[in-house]
Amino acid sequence: MNTPVDSHDITKPSASRPDITGETRIVAIVGDPIRQVKSPVSFNAEFARRGIDAVMVPFQFPSASFDADMPALMRLANLGGIVVTMPFKTRIMPMLAGFSAAARSVGAVNALRRLPTGDWFGDIFDGVGLIGAARSIGIEPAGLRVGLIGAGGAGSAIAFALAGAGIRSLAIVDQDAARARDVARRIGDAGTTAQAVAALVPGDLDLLVNASPVGMSPSDGLPVDVASLHAGVAVVDIVTRPTTPLLDAARRLGCRHAGGAAMVAAQTSAIIDFLQIGSDRA
Amino acid sequence: MNTPVDSHDITKPSASRPDITGETRIVAIVGDPIRQVKSPVSFNAEFARRGIDAVMVPFQFPSASFDADMPALMRLANLGGIVVTMPFKTRIMPMLAGFSAAARSVGAVNALRRLPTGDWFGDIFDGVGLIGAARSIGIEPAGLRVGLIGAGGAGSAIAFALAGAGIRSLAIVDQDAARARDVARRIGDAGTTAQAVAALVPGDLDLLVNASPVGMSPSDGLPVDVASLHAGVAVVDIVTRPTTPLLDAARRLGCRHAGGAAMVAAQTSAIIDFLQIGSDRA
Repeated sequence: MNTPVDSHDITKPSASRPDITGETRIVAIVGDPIRQVKSPVSFNAEFARRGIDAVMVPFQFPSASFDADMPALMRLANLGGIVVTMPFKTRIMPMLAGFSAAARSVGAVNALRRLPTGDWFGDIFDGVGLIGAARSIGIEPAGLRVGLIGAGGAGSAIAFALAGAGIRSLAIVDQDAARARDVARRIGDAGTTAQAVAALVPGDLDLLVNASPVGMSPSDGLPVDVASLHAGVAVVDIVTRPTTPLLDAARRLGCRHAGGAAMVAAQTSAIIDFLQIGSDRA
Repeated sequence: MNTPVDSHDITKPSASRPDITGETRIVAIVGDPIRQVKSPVSFNAEFARRGIDAVMVPFQFPSASFDADMPALMRLANLGGIVVTMPFKTRIMPMLAGFSAAARSVGAVNALRRLPTGDWFGDIFDGVGLIGAARSIGIEPAGLRVGLIGAGGAGSAIAFALAGAGIRSLAIVDQDAARARDVARRIGDAGTTAQAVAALVPGDLDLLVNASPVGMSPSDGLPVDVASLHAGVAVVDIVTRPTTPLLDAARRLGCRHAGGAAMVAAQTSAIIDFLQIGSDRA
């Protein structure tokens, strides 16, 4: 027993992003279902690029227990941020200490920053993401005739962002016609030509956006009749699957197109800035 | 707008372990404080080695809200396992559907497996870890005179494991003398010579184990008087810091020694087996 032996070394994997240690801050992405989310890959790559000691991990809250259980998660001391996805973007708002004017307009949030008090402040970046996804395929929204499928949390945020980007007109369709009319009225009040419609005619548009969940399940069909769709219409589908029936149709017809991954990529940097978990706090 | 452009590609870091996606199962390590834990590096390397799509992340529950908030975390649908560290190893037991005989003897757990019902089953691996750490520095416990500092959750588990490994005798010291007497009595009842002592004399031992938290804070002193310590005594300190005053003394005197990282390494594989989150469920 005379030979000094050093403490056992733990083998470190040679990962390009930092290892997760006890000091690593957690950023949760919360949704139900959660398997389809693309944000962890995008955020973790960006954390590594910026040298931020944080990791995004998926948290699947059963929808039935979300209201009771989410506040407990929000008290975790080493939780540095929360990204919220369906179906919780509106349900989480009563749990917040405050939210941005954009979140108030839309009635939904998708990113939460921790305040020095430990409470949470919400904002919404779906609009930023949609504009970024459009630009990633060479589409500048200003002056375009846009059709939007879905007037829920993401759809509303996208409608406000498109209006802010100077589109020529917006036609909105939703299974819940009252919801589509409400968003159209508020966009119209803010000075952009907008109307709720019973059905979109893609061929009359410059940009078609699917902000409905149709396409999340492989058995879903198309969210819109694509009989009139042609190569002059750009298509963005925010569903985060490798492809969707709508994107398949767009690809077949030679349309410029982008999917949910492009929207996630465009949101990632903006959300990380918002979270304020840079090296000063890591 | 005529050129077809593929969806934006998200850059994937070329990590040696799999990227975290929406399908990755979460394994939480829960404690307060949490910064000092070494398990995430060890577990994530082993998950990568085995090709298991899981990631260990640290969850710091404020101790005051643990009893109210932990059950919410335990309902997360994509949580594949939980490792429990101080100060929750005993407090978590009422939240479990069951636990092993070893956990019942010790009165503490440090790993939880999810049952098919969604409930949780606990077991304790501190003893397995201590024996493994000793063997990693060439020490086989059978026949040795052992001194143990700390008769809490980890200390009790270590005492039972050492007795099971056939040590010659066990002397136990704890600030709470009744707790030390209780563990000594139970070890003695099981057939191993054991006594609670007011103070250990390291020079009379073959193996000295610190299972108390003394050494976790850099301002902590030594957990035992080392005046009699000599190179013939092996020292294992389960505190998971790069070094501790006790390990410094052991190193200075030429003692074989191992720290908390060696114990974590020895536990990791056994706990991953126990969690049953292999490829069949990943």
